[in-house]
Amino acid sequence: MTSFSEKIRQRWKTSTLCVGLDTDLSKIPNHFGRHLTAIFHFNQAIIDATHDLVCAYKPQIAYYAAVGAEEQLKQTIEYIHAKYPAIPVILDAKRGDIGDTAEMYAKEAFEVYKADAVTVNPYMGGDTLAPFLKYKDKGVIVLCKTSNAGSAELQNLKIGDKFLFEVVAEKAVAEWNTHKNVSLVVGATHAAELKAVRKIVGEDMMFLVPGVGAQGGNPQEVIKNGGNSKGEGLIINSSRAIIYASQGKDFAEAARSVALKTLESLKI
Amino acid sequence: MTSFSEKIRQRWKTSTLCVGLDTDLSKIPNHFGRHLTAIFHFNQAIIDATHDLVCAYKPQIAYYAAVGAEEQLKQTIEYIHAKYPAIPVILDAKRGDIGDTAEMYAKEAFEVYKADAVTVNPYMGGDTLAPFLKYKDKGVIVLCKTSNAGSAELQNLKIGDKFLFEVVAEKAVAEWNTHKNVSLVVGATHAAELKAVRKIVGEDMMFLVPGVGAQGGNPQEVIKNGGNSKGEGLIINSSRAIIYASQGKDFAEAARSVALKTLESLKI
Repeated sequence: MTSFSEKIRQRWKTSTLCVGLDTDLSKIPNHFGRHLTAIFHFNQAIIDATHDLVCAYKPQIAYYAAVGAEEQLKQTIEYIHAKYPAIPVILDAKRGDIGDTAEMYAKEAFEVYKADAVTVNPYMGGDTLAPFLKYKDKGVIVLCKTSNAGSAELQNLKIGDKFLFEVVAEKAVAEWNTHKNVSLVVGATHAAELKAVRKIVGEDMMFLVPGVGAQGGNPQEVIKNGGNSKGEGLIINSSRAIIYASQGKDFAEAARSVALKTLESLKI
Repeated sequence: MTSFSEKIRQRWKTSTLCVGLDTDLSKIPNHFGRHLTAIFHFNQAIIDATHDLVCAYKPQIAYYAAVGAEEQLKQTIEYIHAKYPAIPVILDAKRGDIGDTAEMYAKEAFEVYKADAVTVNPYMGGDTLAPFLKYKDKGVIVLCKTSNAGSAELQNLKIGDKFLFEVVAEKAVAEWNTHKNVSLVVGATHAAELKAVRKIVGEDMMFLVPGVGAQGGNPQEVIKNGGNSKGEGLIINSSRAIIYASQGKDFAEAARSVALKTLESLKI
């Protein structure tokens, strides 16, 4: 099996853009109707319209779980694997729990949904990440500095002369990355923090960067501050700005057009 | 609707024991078979055998999601609400995400699964808890100091003269508890920490305490250190030690017997 890391590095030759599939029945074009099956059909159209422009897709599981659309999430990931096998799927789930339970969450992400990578929360400590990390070919993307306004509340607390998110970055690179399958979430909305984290982890660790698009992060600032010495190492996510680009019958072309424009803005 | 807090306070007259429904198809008695429906039938039997001995049930969602048994989780919670409406259900999910997504997770817990309370992770900050907190009648149980061995790794980092988990406790009581619906997770395996957190939050805040039973926390130490001045304020969880008490046809009586013994050990 091709690992998450290999898949991403291959796709980076084409794009650093990740499209977030935060599909909400109340926000997709009316002509889809409101049956759960619409979620899959909408995703399918978005994927077909953008597949040559992305390095990854990132469905956010909450949108599916909130309406009991687990089946549509599964179908979406299966569709990507079957039709576009080179494109990895990141399950955005932000899981985290003690060992036995973490095993179950790892099973959820990697066996039930067959994702290539999953986002996880580090608050409970490294032993709670271990059950994810042992899937060597899968990506484990640890929350470091998130894109929301309130992220500073805990993440920017000072531990001696370091911020908490910097301690997380240090542990990620020095302790949790034995199988070279750890990446970090660092929000596009924090230029200085992107720079600080890149400095800590060095050239090789990948960042999943949410917060361009609807949340307003500046793409070139993200590359300058978060990229490695070649401006690389970034999986830059946009969700709503792309998938909800139009409410009309032209939603797929509109999504493609915004994806193209976003990709253009990400050129080094 | 009776609030989570009112339900718990009523049940405390009978018991402070919470039974964790971490139901794993590979661990339940063989005579149930291995079809997903067995999960619900097993839970039903455990609930019927223990309902008069508990203050709450706590299904851990990962066990259901790992095998695609969302329907059995829903049925289990519906069964408790219908047959034992006085017993609140805590959905152990440890969710946490930015605002729009947190709204979806709150919907998952409170509308899809109709839980009375949910566990959440504070790493992303107070704005990510707000979508849960606005459900005033629901309980929002914030991870503070967890029961696992590695919990110290981040939670016991020093912020000035305080531990990170103490900062979380301070924020919980001073900033996040506007609707009086915040509780904290504090593990049974940490006596000194239980005491420190109780001192910070005062008499009224409830603790969900995992780690007695299979994880080995001492019940009387938990009450002495984590209880308020009356030794109250605790929802003490045991999962595996109770639900997997026997692999035989007597599993339900065996579960009842361990639950009774545990309840006895929790007497003040």
